[in-house]
Amino acid sequence: MKKIHIVGLGLLGGSFALASKDKFPDILISGTDADEKNLQDALNLGIIQEAKEAPDADTDIVILATPADTLGDLLLTTLDQIGENTLVFDVGSTKAKLCELVADHPKRKQYLAAHPIAGTEYSGPNAAFAGLLDRKVTIICDLEKTDLGLKEKAYKLFDALNLKLRFMDPEEHDRHLAFVSHLSHISSFMLGKTVLQKMEDEKNIFDMAGSGFASTVRLAKSSPAMWAPIFTENKTNILSALDGYISNLSAFRDKIAANDGQGLSDEMSEINKIREILDLEK
Amino acid sequence: MKKIHIVGLGLLGGSFALASKDKFPDILISGTDADEKNLQDALNLGIIQEAKEAPDADTDIVILATPADTLGDLLLTTLDQIGENTLVFDVGSTKAKLCELVADHPKRKQYLAAHPIAGTEYSGPNAAFAGLLDRKVTIICDLEKTDLGLKEKAYKLFDALNLKLRFMDPEEHDRHLAFVSHLSHISSFMLGKTVLQKMEDEKNIFDMAGSGFASTVRLAKSSPAMWAPIFTENKTNILSALDGYISNLSAFRDKIAANDGQGLSDEMSEINKIREILDLEK
Repeated sequence: MKKIHIVGLGLLGGSFALASKDKFPDILISGTDADEKNLQDALNLGIIQEAKEAPDADTDIVILATPADTLGDLLLTTLDQIGENTLVFDVGSTKAKLCELVADHPKRKQYLAAHPIAGTEYSGPNAAFAGLLDRKVTIICDLEKTDLGLKEKAYKLFDALNLKLRFMDPEEHDRHLAFVSHLSHISSFMLGKTVLQKMEDEKNIFDMAGSGFASTVRLAKSSPAMWAPIFTENKTNILSALDGYISNLSAFRDKIAANDGQGLSDEMSEINKIREILDLEK
Repeated sequence: MKKIHIVGLGLLGGSFALASKDKFPDILISGTDADEKNLQDALNLGIIQEAKEAPDADTDIVILATPADTLGDLLLTTLDQIGENTLVFDVGSTKAKLCELVADHPKRKQYLAAHPIAGTEYSGPNAAFAGLLDRKVTIICDLEKTDLGLKEKAYKLFDALNLKLRFMDPEEHDRHLAFVSHLSHISSFMLGKTVLQKMEDEKNIFDMAGSGFASTVRLAKSSPAMWAPIFTENKTNILSALDGYISNLSAFRDKIAANDGQGLSDEMSEINKIREILDLEK
């Protein structure tokens, strides 16, 4: 592992760079970012050693870490640029469209569809840190379509970074993520919005917010530039998740309106079983 | 401060006991709980030194820490039991109905309406810990209706426990809390429910859940016995918060359906201003 090139030097791309440099001190990391300030910050922070538009022909791995709606064009461009021993993987939160786009591409076997489930509510190179990826689940889609030798390169990096790999098809990935990630972000943003609207009438409302509110609203700090494209790219699955959520909220609302204390309590007891599931995952 | 009596020895009542004993080692804490096992646990854990149904006549402070829908009757009973130098305060999450109930009670001045904004997703005496209340905002309602001398007793305890006091009328309290606490719990429970429903079709879905999901769904582990009564006690305000939330979700849904990336991004950028507000509160 001698050369990595990263396109998109934000939280995830930047953290890949920092962690890779930690594990492979002799590696040369180049990269680029559509935002000139991000690129300069990435150089100043030592995230990349060299600013460069396209990867060198002998680059081992190219990581694509830009917003979800830009990954399609970027992947096609990158496949045109790379040498034959280079692997490209993206780290986007949606996988189906991307995998479909390159399904019949002559260089398909040089691409690996990856999604590390890692992030914080902050964004940009300044938010990146080497520990972000440590022991995080990373989903790999359509594994069989990637060249065996090039996969070995990816495994070498993933193992060094302590990623926990899971494998599934891209449609399954997108369906699952709509529920366990994308929906959370929407529920959090809308919670933030609802309370901000209330604050226009009622001052100091946030002074009374406890740790529960902070926890549920945390994701409302997330980057719109990252999330708006995810919501439209994974539209069908997200609408299905969101419709289920709204329908559950409406039914719960009606139980409150009817003073149905027993019904509310029974329903919440049933949902409490999420305790065991979440604790199991730890 | 020589004697405290606590009714309801769960997370909040138990934590008051442990913190009070920390700060006033010579104090005698008695208490009771409707659940025999909780009572026994509280004795075994040293949360109370004595199990006792009613407070002694020379008890300094009685703390009522039972579910919201039981506090009305309990407060009336307690006011009948206490000596004239005893202060009673409750720690319930709703205040308006309670304050109205005792507005003209002959012993009104021996009651203080309090709400410490403190909790975790766990419940019962085993979840109690002395640090829970440390530096937590505590809302006091209708302060002027409590006897001056008895208030001093409460202040002595609150100061020792490092509570940060805020003052407002009970209606304002209930309106605010519907938005910054009660709504969060509903959004979290319904998120948990929506994902559990999906899990019936799709296995291993939680394996892909990141820290964002864990954070937004954490409150779905909360106690139904505590929360169902809060939802019905504060019904009007919660329905107003919930209707606003559902309406915001539906409008956001429509933007996704319309592929309105710019609209989604603009809306989230606006909501991002919650960053400064939340960081300010720290």
